[in-house]
Amino acid sequence: MDINNDYSRKDECPLGEQDGMLYGEYLQLDKILNAQRMLSEANNASVHDEHLFIITHQAYELWFKQVIYELDSVRMIFSKHQGLDESETLEVLKRLSRIVLILKLLADQVMILETMTPLDFMEFREYLCPASGFQSVQFRLIENKLGMKQENRVRFNQNYLCVFGRDEKGLEAIAKSEVEPSLAHLVEQWLERTPGLEPEGFNFWGKYKYNVNKMLETYYKSAMATDCESERAFKMADYEKRKALFDSVLEPNIHAAFVQRGERRFTHKALQGAIMITFYRDEPRFSQPHQLLTLLMDIDSLVTKWRYNHVLMVQRMIGSQHLGTGGSSGYQYLRSTLSDRYKVFLDLFNLSTFLLPRSYIPPLSDTMKSQLNLHWGATNSETVSAS
Amino acid sequence: MDINNDYSRKDECPLGEQDGMLYGEYLQLDKILNAQRMLSEANNASVHDEHLFIITHQAYELWFKQVIYELDSVRMIFSKHQGLDESETLEVLKRLSRIVLILKLLADQVMILETMTPLDFMEFREYLCPASGFQSVQFRLIENKLGMKQENRVRFNQNYLCVFGRDEKGLEAIAKSEVEPSLAHLVEQWLERTPGLEPEGFNFWGKYKYNVNKMLETYYKSAMATDCESERAFKMADYEKRKALFDSVLEPNIHAAFVQRGERRFTHKALQGAIMITFYRDEPRFSQPHQLLTLLMDIDSLVTKWRYNHVLMVQRMIGSQHLGTGGSSGYQYLRSTLSDRYKVFLDLFNLSTFLLPRSYIPPLSDTMKSQLNLHWGATNSETVSAS
Amino acid sequence: MDINNDYSRKDECPLGEQDGMLYGEYLQLDKILNAQRMLSEANNASVHDEHLFIITHQAYELWFKQVIYELDSVRMIFSKHQGLDESETLEVLKRLSRIVLILKLLADQVMILETMTPLDFMEFREYLCPASGFQSVQFRLIENKLGMKQENRVRFNQNYLCVFGRDEKGLEAIAKSEVEPSLAHLVEQWLERTPGLEPEGFNFWGKYKYNVNKMLETYYKSAMATDCESERAFKMADYEKRKALFDSVLEPNIHAAFVQRGERRFTHKALQGAIMITFYRDEPRFSQPHQLLTLLMDIDSLVTKWRYNHVLMVQRMIGSQHLGTGGSSGYQYLRSTLSDRYKVFLDLFNLSTFLLPRSYIPPLSDTMKSQLNLHWGATNSETVSAS
Amino acid sequence: MDINNDYSRKDECPLGEQDGMLYGEYLQLDKILNAQRMLSEANNASVHDEHLFIITHQAYELWFKQVIYELDSVRMIFSKHQGLDESETLEVLKRLSRIVLILKLLADQVMILETMTPLDFMEFREYLCPASGFQSVQFRLIENKLGMKQENRVRFNQNYLCVFGRDEKGLEAIAKSEVEPSLAHLVEQWLERTPGLEPEGFNFWGKYKYNVNKMLETYYKSAMATDCESERAFKMADYEKRKALFDSVLEPNIHAAFVQRGERRFTHKALQGAIMITFYRDEPRFSQPHQLLTLLMDIDSLVTKWRYNHVLMVQRMIGSQHLGTGGSSGYQYLRSTLSDRYKVFLDLFNLSTFLLPRSYIPPLSDTMKSQLNLHWGATNSETVSAS
Repeated sequence: MDINNDYSRKDECPLGEQDGMLYGEYLQLDKILNAQRMLSEANNASVHDEHLFIITHQAYELWFKQVIYELDSVRMIFSKHQGLDESETLEVLKRLSRIVLILKLLADQVMILETMTPLDFMEFREYLCPASGFQSVQFRLIENKLGMKQENRVRFNQNYLCVFGRDEKGLEAIAKSEVEPSLAHLVEQWLERTPGLEPEGFNFWGKYKYNVNKMLETYYKSAMATDCESERAFKMADYEKRKALFDSVLEPNIHAAFVQRGERRFTHKALQGAIMITFYRDEPRFSQPHQLLTLLMDIDSLVTKWRYNHVLMVQRMIGSQHLGTGGSSGYQYLRSTLSDRYKVFLDLFNLSTFLLPRSYIPPLSDTMKSQLNLHWGATNSETVSAS
Repeated sequence: MDINNDYSRKDECPLGEQDGMLYGEYLQLDKILNAQRMLSEANNASVHDEHLFIITHQAYELWFKQVIYELDSVRMIFSKHQGLDESETLEVLKRLSRIVLILKLLADQVMILETMTPLDFMEFREYLCPASGFQSVQFRLIENKLGMKQENRVRFNQNYLCVFGRDEKGLEAIAKSEVEPSLAHLVEQWLERTPGLEPEGFNFWGKYKYNVNKMLETYYKSAMATDCESERAFKMADYEKRKALFDSVLEPNIHAAFVQRGERRFTHKALQGAIMITFYRDEPRFSQPHQLLTLLMDIDSLVTKWRYNHVLMVQRMIGSQHLGTGGSSGYQYLRSTLSDRYKVFLDLFNLSTFLLPRSYIPPLSDTMKSQLNLHWGATNSETVSAS
Repeated sequence: MDINNDYSRKDECPLGEQDGMLYGEYLQLDKILNAQRMLSEANNASVHDEHLFIITHQAYELWFKQVIYELDSVRMIFSKHQGLDESETLEVLKRLSRIVLILKLLADQVMILETMTPLDFMEFREYLCPASGFQSVQFRLIENKLGMKQENRVRFNQNYLCVFGRDEKGLEAIAKSEVEPSLAHLVEQWLERTPGLEPEGFNFWGKYKYNVNKMLETYYKSAMATDCESERAFKMADYEKRKALFDSVLEPNIHAAFVQRGERRFTHKALQGAIMITFYRDEPRFSQPHQLLTLLMDIDSLVTKWRYNHVLMVQRMIGSQHLGTGGSSGYQYLRSTLSDRYKVFLDLFNLSTFLLPRSYIPPLSDTMKSQLNLHWGATNSETVSAS
Repeated sequence: MDINNDYSRKDECPLGEQDGMLYGEYLQLDKILNAQRMLSEANNASVHDEHLFIITHQAYELWFKQVIYELDSVRMIFSKHQGLDESETLEVLKRLSRIVLILKLLADQVMILETMTPLDFMEFREYLCPASGFQSVQFRLIENKLGMKQENRVRFNQNYLCVFGRDEKGLEAIAKSEVEPSLAHLVEQWLERTPGLEPEGFNFWGKYKYNVNKMLETYYKSAMATDCESERAFKMADYEKRKALFDSVLEPNIHAAFVQRGERRFTHKALQGAIMITFYRDEPRFSQPHQLLTLLMDIDSLVTKWRYNHVLMVQRMIGSQHLGTGGSSGYQYLRSTLSDRYKVFLDLFNLSTFLLPRSYIPPLSDTMKSQLNLHWGATNSETVSAS
């Protein structure tokens, strides 16, 4: 093959000129592809599957870095304008969607690690600290930046030294991530500013309260009108249950008690915003906010699914047999992180509890309807003068 | 939080002792997570999406390394014993299955890159050589180690300098991969040794030939016995077609011509072995070989799917408009790699053409039947003496 | 187990009352689960894998029905208001996203069918017409409703009788789907109304043309200013290529010629709209339209991926060996449907060709900027009076 | 288009002759595609998303039927020969792999249903009984046929009437599935016959016991030899823990107690077989059995993952808010099915607990080594005479 004759002129390189940086240099593959040092090999007892173990976890960490990168950028957009500039909503949606896709990939990736058998794993695990995504500083950062609160973690996970050991820089980053405003916090603030919540304006919450009561009254009357005693009792119990449920969101102090117990997260005002957006999601200005809320749930679900797939994998590798004699296994600890306490946007999952049948949703006023066609945060007068 | 009181004793660290190597050190995360240098940033025009571009390609390369690692180990197992020691078949199957899972992941991963828009890409692509998996040295190694032959590549891809530029070490590795025995070559040799092919023994091929002819004769007679002329002509044409098809595998010289044209790959003997394994896959000793053949097809399919998904992504990023005026686009080149010429195990895909209805499959002799219950390569006498 | 004691009162059925319709009745499982009749069984030669073949294709058809349901609803929304009422964009996006998810599932589903081996398939395929998704009336309807044009199909696929045989109702539905406005057609009309295209208003196309020429001039001048003759020649050729490319979109008659040849689909005006939306996608009113364009490409990609995966599966089942003697195989026909001719939204994939570096994108006027904050189709005055 | 001229002769129909049964007839699409009756429509309040709800659940049921079909066939193969005829192992592996792929698809399918929002769901859920995969008779059959035991279910799920209501035929099928031998039971019997367990022969368990004790002794001595008191105490505690763990498998009565509590499933003998196969999986005759054990875990994992994804989806639709006032939600019930009690092959997941470092695995005797090259269940003499 005569290379010179064929392609000596770069205009014949159909994929592009060769002046720029080379693929391998650009990607710093010298670093990436020389970072696999098998401990079993160093101990002269090379175990084939250790290579997979290393590569899989490195791939996790690469993607974790990307998730953090997107998360930080979204948090910055939210902080910048004391709220979300609507011209940036698309960008936020794109970045959150990307996080969703990455998390889906990571959940699938667990299956590759499962091709390693416990017997293989046993042969090299003695050389290492228990290395799993749960010891990953970056995974902890993701949790914190999303808004996972220290007090909702299970006791073991609250301990730093034990999990992250001597990694000074890592511990520092984690400490910082706990004081910086998390995505959950920024979303909360943004929800509190949902247009239409102002009591002196559209007063959504007043209208919601009124309609909830109207609906409950219907249930009550229907129960009372029932002749058969046992059926009436049943209907009455149902009414009481529903009332208690709605009271928990209508009464700020009950809501506060839920928050206190860690069973709710958002402030009362933010919850109102989320409910309002859900009701009127088809109005132009609420439609992307509604997409945003959905993506936040997707992210929460997928972090949980990853944890779950991971737990099943760990069970295969090290077993889950409980010993009765006290000591509790790594598996048991990991399993505990699957609880709802680890869901950052728990309130969004529970929103459905507070929805109303379409006939009870308060109709929008003309002013409100028009406002929801406008730029989020712009006053009407501004719009007029701009046009 | 009083760390010392809670977990100062390592026996209370439920995930394990902290004496071993730390997660981050073990994974060399200092290298992995410090290898992202955005060219757009270096040029003071930071483009958010370049980060994704880098991470995605680095993740590809990590997995490519793992695929090569598995591929090399499988090739070594095949070379070691002048054939495949049956006690290692499970290991080979496990490693090929793992490659399958990794390739599936890589095909999915393309969708993440698609979240980057052309407008974003445009902003930093000027800084780089056209970087895509197709310029990846490791991907080329995978192709070569699988058994992709230089002469089957489209013209452009045959050119090294143009694709891999100044990467001396890479070019060397590629050159080496072209002379070393590929997986396809080793599989071919192994298939040629399929027990039962010996003409003086079970003589599978003799029996196959005999039965094919018997079957074709039935078609011929059925055609000749048809009264209606046009129907007879139709049946006759069908018979001719089938005959031509089977001749192409029964006649070594016709087969050789197909190989010459690049439309078949295996030697005549190896093809016989593959057909035999397919027919008797339920016999214990053929059952894992049959799994192996299936996995080879899976790998071929998935490499192709990855290429295809990649091509669609490139079309989104840079367009595919053909200009008529001569110059042909990167997209056109990439698309050309989707042809069957790029399928390494093409013959396995085409095996179905040469299968026979169950009633025509030659029955196994008692000796053969018993042999297929034994250790591959062991002689009967050895088995007897061993037991 | 004493059922009566435990749960005799329906209020103790925690999943809900049992008054409503039963799960199985609601889903008409009597129909769904009694529609599997194995031909091989009917012929007293039961083949285990035929069951999978039937179930897989029935699952395809169920999902095809859902895709058609969503597609029809989206087409109706587009037709209703002579364009897309912005309060319905979210709904359109949701439904298109759902189609995307379904198509992803269908592409994955092909792998399940691949667990059937050719030898298994051979045993029952004689009983049936070649049954594949390509003979599916519903799949053809999906293609037509998306906007696949008859003239872009390969010759074989254009023939109805041969593909769909005696299915009168099916042929009727297909005929109807060819005259009804397709999604592509409705999207085209909607793109033509993109605000900002009016020549007497923002006049986007005028500005685009002006900036393209300015940019090309820079290339030209840079080429002319080069001293070294060979380099100048190279740069000049590059300039000519780019100019030809942009001419093809700037000159309506060249664009028309592309359309004529089937290499472009949209009207000139619609293409302008698509380019404009891509440039200003961050403006609130263009942000969901941009999401919409992206989803249309996703759908096109995934239909293609499904076809591709399907073709690979068919190759495994029936082989692809070309016989030279004339007759061409089913595989060859299927493969031909992978060409770009089968991409409905081809122009969106090729948009990237016509994008400009950010510095050349025409800045929005104040009026335009304000308009893009408003309700699509609302005039400014209306907005003012509404507020 | 002149159909007659083009394709009037069926030999020009490249996809095959048209004499056989038509695609749509074969698939009984008249039943499949006419089984979607929207209750919301029947109530004159059509809700768009109900269609998706129906299609998704019907697709589940189709695949459930396929899973049951494969499961039944595998159970039949296991029952036929009082054990597994080795010439059928490949078929068993193929069918279990297929179940794995289907279950993966079903787990992914949940995401499609998640595109329905709670507000949409609210509008039609009143018309129906709580319909979810958990009310599916077929899903219950799958659980039972796998080997899910009634006593391991949470209390609510144990109740039939409440879950499956008036479906007589369904209840009958469930009752039958509870008395028929489950896959777990058949696998257990098969494991008990693992060659090498015979006390008078290779006596695997005797050797295992001996080596475990040898290993534990090393730990004990190492602990006793430690000077520092606190370190000695720590090591001693570690030794005790390990001893207790191994005692639980070495002492039949402790094992029995675990079984009693539902924390183990297999008989003591079957557990021995599973451990033995795991150790010697590279011997030809143990290699497919080892693949089989792995597939059983995959199936268990995936059923669990499907449940988990389903639970997260239900949480989105109906919320999970606990009301304190007593009543507990559907979500809480569903969540409870995620516990290890619902894992049928729990013991396989826990095998890793009882594995030994390679240096402690008892070496195979020559006789044993040769036996593991033979046909499972064949006596040596038979093999000799056959050859």
